[in-house]
This record gives sequence, C-alpha cells and structure tokens, in this order.
Amino acid sequence: MALRSDWSVEQCPVRRGLDVVGDPWSLLIMRDALHGRRRFEEFRSLGISDSVLSRRLAALVRDGLLVRREYRGPRRTHDEYLPTKAGTDLLPVLHALAGWAEAHTDLPAGGGHMAIIHTTCGAETRSADTCTACGEPLTSQDVSWDKPWFGRRDPLVGPAAP
Amino acid sequence: MALRSDWSVEQCPVRRGLDVVGDPWSLLIMRDALHGRRRFEEFRSLGISDSVLSRRLAALVRDGLLVRREYRGPRRTHDEYLPTKAGTDLLPVLHALAGWAEAHTDLPAGGGHMAIIHTTCGAETRSADTCTACGEPLTSQDVSWDKPWFGRRDPLVGPAAP
Repeated sequence: MALRSDWSVEQCPVRRGLDVVGDPWSLLIMRDALHGRRRFEEFRSLGISDSVLSRRLAALVRDGLLVRREYRGPRRTHDEYLPTKAGTDLLPVLHALAGWAEAHTDLPAGGGHMAIIHTTCGAETRSADTCTACGEPLTSQDVSWDKPWFGRRDPLVGPAAP
Repeated sequence: MALRSDWSVEQCPVRRGLDVVGDPWSLLIMRDALHGRRRFEEFRSLGISDSVLSRRLAALVRDGLLVRREYRGPRRTHDEYLPTKAGTDLLPVLHALAGWAEAHTDLPAGGGHMAIIHTTCGAETRSADTCTACGEPLTSQDVSWDKPWFGRRDPLVGPAAP
C-alpha cells in the first residue's frame, strides 16, 4: 500500500490494520470470500477491473487473508481463493461497518438492511462480534447474513482454510 | 468517493459504509478526532498532505461525521472540527480494525498494543463494542485507549457535538 511509509511514525494497531485492509476493494473482496465466492470470475461481480482484482487478490494472499489453491473441475483446472483464519477474523470489521451504515446512511430504495443472525441461538445481533441475545462471541461458523433485498440468507464459509 | 457509482448495483450496508469511510485517511482522521484533536494543524501529524487533509475534512463534514465550528482563541479565530454522533459511532469500526491488527500483524519494535479500557468498570475489553468483562455496550464516553508505547492513556472525546 502506498501509504505504508507515511504512517511508519506510528505503532497504533488501527494504522497497522488499515495498512493491510484499508483499501475498500480488499474489504469487499473479503466480504464476498466470506460469502463463499472463490473464483476470479465470481469476484468480478463487484464491478472491479480485472487488473485491480488481480492485484488485490495477490496482496490478500501475500498478507495471509486468503490462500490460493488449485481446483480440478470437471472440464478444467482453475485457481480458487479461500479465507484463512486471518480472513474470517475480519468478520467484526465488516459487521462494524455494516452496523455504522445501517445507523447513519440512507436506506436505499428497495431496502438494504442486513440482519446478522447468530445461527446457534437464532437471534439477530446488533454487535460486531458478540451475540446481543445470548452473549456468545460470533465466528464465521455460526453467523449468517440475512439480506431480504436479495431474498437470501447466506451462511458464511465456516471454518477457515488451514 | 470515486467508487460510489461502481458499487451502486448493491445495497449492502458494508458497501454503503465503505462509500463514506472507506478511505484510510478518513478513518485515521476520525481516530484522531475521537482522541480530541480538533484543529487542522493537529491533524497534520498524520503525515497527510494539506490538500488531501482539506478534502477529507470537508467530506467528513459533508457526510455528517464532523461539524466545523469557529473557535475564538486568545490571539486569533480558527476553525475546529468536532465529532458528531455519527462520528463517535465509528468507535466499533476502529476497535475492530485494531483488534484484527493485534491478532494478525507483527508487533512493531517498541510495542504497539493498544488496550481498550472500559472506564466504567476498569477492565480491558477485547470486543469492538461490548465490555467483555461486564457486558455493557461501549461508547466514546466510557472508553479510553491505553497506549503504553506512547506512555499515554487517552480518554476519548466524550459526548458527540450536537
């Protein structure tokens, strides 16, 4: 990231986090990876250019948030990208951003509320990392994102790739 | 933000949040504003250029995260920037980023752990928005950021500007 050296005077973990995931595309790629998107072609639906997508995926692999694996399909072999533990641990960052936007941006026509469901107890939580109903910490294995405007409830990817 | 139109096909609140605060400088300015920095000159310590700082402050005022006020000092009058409720509500985003970095980036030489202290009960919390000791939700009025590498414990700004 270009800003890395400018922030080197500071040791603050907010700055260190932004050094790795401060680019909006990186967080959107990770959001989609946590949804189960795996292939280059699938991430294209973000509306990102191929060259930027290639660079961001390579950076996320380099920084340990995704692993690249070869997948042997029925017709041909392709690469796929799976979130690691560091990748699934971004869940609270994504939830905190979503929660802030729900409170402070206009709801788009057609709706835009994303309910964060703690599947273990079935409740909707308003916290980034804790079930506000039962108090348990949230992980990617027990959360689904309920998006009525898509007509979908999406379970997340589950355990991180080793 | 340049990316706004590219993401307009989606209504996801993660995307809507990134439309407003997806720029790393914006989050660092808000981090410093929550610390009590108010004046243009104070935000310069981020190592940001004056032109970028001007644009980011104007955008944060436009989007309702900061309010600009005239402050009559002893020698001259200057503008100052105070976080609104939408600004202080970014606390969980900053905490989630810090928590992720503490877990997944190398600790810099000289240290870099930032303890999030819930001042009401005195405990350090590991959650972005909830005290992991007493279970109460965190607000900017009852959190301080303990940064031993600065030798400082910084209370946050307290109540948002009306």
